[in-house]
Amino acid sequence: MMPTPFNDKSEIDYDSIDKLIELSIKSKCYGIVIMGVMGEAHRLTENERNDVIKHVSKIVNGRIPITVGVSGESIEIVSQRVKESNIFGANYILCSPPKMLKTNESVLLEFFKGITKDNHLPIVLQDLPQETGVNLTPEFINKISTQVPQIKFIKLEDPPTPKKISEILSKTSNKLGIFGGLGGIFLIEELMRGAIGTMTGFAYPEILVNTFEEFKKNNINNAKSLFYKWLPLIRYENQQGISLSIRKHILFRRGIISTPDTRLPTPSIDEKTEKELEFLLKDYQINN
Amino acid sequence: MMPTPFNDKSEIDYDSIDKLIELSIKSKCYGIVIMGVMGEAHRLTENERNDVIKHVSKIVNGRIPITVGVSGESIEIVSQRVKESNIFGANYILCSPPKMLKTNESVLLEFFKGITKDNHLPIVLQDLPQETGVNLTPEFINKISTQVPQIKFIKLEDPPTPKKISEILSKTSNKLGIFGGLGGIFLIEELMRGAIGTMTGFAYPEILVNTFEEFKKNNINNAKSLFYKWLPLIRYENQQGISLSIRKHILFRRGIISTPDTRLPTPSIDEKTEKELEFLLKDYQINN
Amino acid sequence: MMPTPFNDKSEIDYDSIDKLIELSIKSKCYGIVIMGVMGEAHRLTENERNDVIKHVSKIVNGRIPITVGVSGESIEIVSQRVKESNIFGANYILCSPPKMLKTNESVLLEFFKGITKDNHLPIVLQDLPQETGVNLTPEFINKISTQVPQIKFIKLEDPPTPKKISEILSKTSNKLGIFGGLGGIFLIEELMRGAIGTMTGFAYPEILVNTFEEFKKNNINNAKSLFYKWLPLIRYENQQGISLSIRKHILFRRGIISTPDTRLPTPSIDEKTEKELEFLLKDYQINN
Amino acid sequence: MMPTPFNDKSEIDYDSIDKLIELSIKSKCYGIVIMGVMGEAHRLTENERNDVIKHVSKIVNGRIPITVGVSGESIEIVSQRVKESNIFGANYILCSPPKMLKTNESVLLEFFKGITKDNHLPIVLQDLPQETGVNLTPEFINKISTQVPQIKFIKLEDPPTPKKISEILSKTSNKLGIFGGLGGIFLIEELMRGAIGTMTGFAYPEILVNTFEEFKKNNINNAKSLFYKWLPLIRYENQQGISLSIRKHILFRRGIISTPDTRLPTPSIDEKTEKELEFLLKDYQINN
Repeated sequence: MMPTPFNDKSEIDYDSIDKLIELSIKSKCYGIVIMGVMGEAHRLTENERNDVIKHVSKIVNGRIPITVGVSGESIEIVSQRVKESNIFGANYILCSPPKMLKTNESVLLEFFKGITKDNHLPIVLQDLPQETGVNLTPEFINKISTQVPQIKFIKLEDPPTPKKISEILSKTSNKLGIFGGLGGIFLIEELMRGAIGTMTGFAYPEILVNTFEEFKKNNINNAKSLFYKWLPLIRYENQQGISLSIRKHILFRRGIISTPDTRLPTPSIDEKTEKELEFLLKDYQINN
Repeated sequence: MMPTPFNDKSEIDYDSIDKLIELSIKSKCYGIVIMGVMGEAHRLTENERNDVIKHVSKIVNGRIPITVGVSGESIEIVSQRVKESNIFGANYILCSPPKMLKTNESVLLEFFKGITKDNHLPIVLQDLPQETGVNLTPEFINKISTQVPQIKFIKLEDPPTPKKISEILSKTSNKLGIFGGLGGIFLIEELMRGAIGTMTGFAYPEILVNTFEEFKKNNINNAKSLFYKWLPLIRYENQQGISLSIRKHILFRRGIISTPDTRLPTPSIDEKTEKELEFLLKDYQINN
Repeated sequence: MMPTPFNDKSEIDYDSIDKLIELSIKSKCYGIVIMGVMGEAHRLTENERNDVIKHVSKIVNGRIPITVGVSGESIEIVSQRVKESNIFGANYILCSPPKMLKTNESVLLEFFKGITKDNHLPIVLQDLPQETGVNLTPEFINKISTQVPQIKFIKLEDPPTPKKISEILSKTSNKLGIFGGLGGIFLIEELMRGAIGTMTGFAYPEILVNTFEEFKKNNINNAKSLFYKWLPLIRYENQQGISLSIRKHILFRRGIISTPDTRLPTPSIDEKTEKELEFLLKDYQINN
Repeated sequence: MMPTPFNDKSEIDYDSIDKLIELSIKSKCYGIVIMGVMGEAHRLTENERNDVIKHVSKIVNGRIPITVGVSGESIEIVSQRVKESNIFGANYILCSPPKMLKTNESVLLEFFKGITKDNHLPIVLQDLPQETGVNLTPEFINKISTQVPQIKFIKLEDPPTPKKISEILSKTSNKLGIFGGLGGIFLIEELMRGAIGTMTGFAYPEILVNTFEEFKKNNINNAKSLFYKWLPLIRYENQQGISLSIRKHILFRRGIISTPDTRLPTPSIDEKTEKELEFLLKDYQINN
């Protein structure tokens, strides 16, 4: 999950984007996701969106697949974003349900059929009830992924995620690939429940990747000890409201992005929190 | 508050827009508001937004002032909308606070200063806590309208509105013009508390205008009897979730718009609700 | 729906309760409901609860049926309230789902089975999503009323109520009696959709009763014209947060209760709202 | 924070309570808190409440101070709980604001003045916005603790807690003692920001106590390494919705309580989650 870096005028910083891409590739991420919630997609203009997608596509140049977030409040908005993402080089699209006052399953079916009418890119359905107000049951996830076959993956952010992974896999006969989310704080449990990976942000993506690789090689103890070593920081990053600001501060400190700024009204961390973060980071010897 | 009409392909129907404009002018509305929540602004692409603004501006051609909704989730998005609205002919802009997990007054001040840096159009601040999560106290409304002098009006949708009108007028020494909202269901009380009008939607805008005119001429009893006559319908239109669909059905039935369609996931009314509406409308003899 | 009257020390005022009971009987209400949300049940101690139930039962003395609200956050709390209500003379009980972070239908089934294990009083299930967080679909209402046969009625407060009445009646093959709610503001529509009455508060219960009687006699126009005459006041009473305070002020002004006080933190109306209410009430000639 | 243990009939299990008390004392907890949210206070009848308070008081017998949760939806309910808690042996009371649709500071002041009129026990004010809907600013915390001098402590559960601790201490000139909460997941940061301890639940309270003791002796590294060793489990316990069920399963497995049961509708963990927990617990060698 790539954050969107800004310069000190709050404009998009393309040099920092390039460094973020190289970090992802060097970290052996299986893919890159742009225009997610933590990418501040909802704080970018449509022109900025498209410029970033084009730029990322050019720089990545086929080295790893690109997933583009397209969530929006109508079929028309999402369809246009899907179309543009496709043209500009997306390999997958990430889409949550639109915001609803009450979950309406027949409207959701119609919505996802609408956005896939002229689109053949595979979809990652984002299960994000705290933002959308939409409660997706495992039964309905099975139904919608049967009727809308482009839905091939779930990005799961409906806690407790480990339990829901087992339920979805059971109801869908394992036909969907499930990614964990929520900052990776249950990565080990998610993998053990059958997740095919995690699609989440962390200022040290290499740690999530390496944990995953150890797990895949069946070195559960290595996976656990690596993950647990970094858990204090993963936990610290996951603070309500300020998680993106913390992540950007670490990336800034790593020399990858040029400022730690987020766009208002996303909260920034104060000086004391910065010092607290510095103190915590001292525990980690990292070569960059 | 102008709804956005769609044809049967869910595309914007410009002929219907023209008829809505003429209805507003014929009804002697003091102005027209486009790109509000009930205008389904959040369901339009940026291109559609801009095309509608340009078209409305051309057709209105200075006959009444145009207010354009520009609410968005960052200074950058709102600023771009303000800039475009200005170029395309807006006279006022309507803007709510961005969505926030917790009301943060200093961030709100910074936000509204940010969006007015290069803009001199007067602002209608929309107080809409149920959508934004932001609680605006009368004290803070006074503070922000002092520090951001472009804020000259409030569109009030924080119930109970009559009480809050008195509180805001008292705290701001009457320097702000307050419009009622929430479908006009408290129009009489809002006017008596000192509102300068209402900025809300109703399928018969002439009724709200005529009520206001009688009130202004100090014919309170005429204002009340006209308003009360229409209250059953105003109430009926104001049903949670389906109010826009009802409004569009009436406008469709009046021959003003070509379909009553809303964009998903806004709920549509079912056949029984349509019949119920027909039954209610029989009580009103209207010459069109 | 009986409010709970307090004296100027915020103690329960039993003389006022007696007058409220006589008002209900004189108004030809079909029953009386105590310990509802508008009865401030959640602001009474358990001793106060029980004292009120006993007192009401004694004074009513079988003249009209008594429904007692028993909603609570565990099977144990509700069961004890059911047991006590039964002993003290309740004829029906009113119970909403317990508060839930996410609607869990199997837990709801277990909950209602639990509270009916040793209880044979008929249950009015209150559908109140805005308080409970629980979304009851018509399908699930059919299922739970089949598996928990004591559930014989629904008090519906999930807007838009007219539409949901049709849906529930259709899914349950009309086996449930549905009452409208939400202050009676859709009483006519609710009756036309098949509601068997309304279970809601209004400071002039006789108006709701008379509207219902005219409707039952098939005098739809009489029902409508009576209801519409009072709609301005019904609407005014239904203001978010202050509706109970307004209702109590009217009952106080009618000489039925000795103070208009609610218990904190239920908001009270201010002086300007009182004057506004006085002004509105002038339109109604009422002989008491 | 003591959970309330139940036997297999969902009745309160007093033998298990005795063991929980001895665990607290043996773990060198500075006090014991009963009738908190995690004590399922809202799922107990008033009689059960009082029986538990009396029993705990008798068994503790002055060995450590007892804090009793008294939160409720009116001054009358809370006052009665305060009175009974006092009689039955409470040393402190824990009280959150009542639930409110909108934060109203003047009503909050009146509420807390009301509950302290005849009470001299020191109060721990619980800042719990996700349950109460009440947003307490550091400025208002200063104001209310000045006007209601019995408020001597804050139990802070408004994330991010480290930042808010610094803000409250700054605005209140350090006159309040602040306890962390939220499962202890930010214990180290909370202590470093000036918290005087944590008031939260964990199935191994001795770990939180020992971390605190090392911190107090200025052995920050010891504190951190102990805390970090247990962080995977603290994190695991803190899963939305099922945290209490996990905690009770561990206490059950430790032989301290006779069943892991919670009362409906609190969710229980399923079999797969139990196995997952077993797997995680293998990493911890604990001698009991």
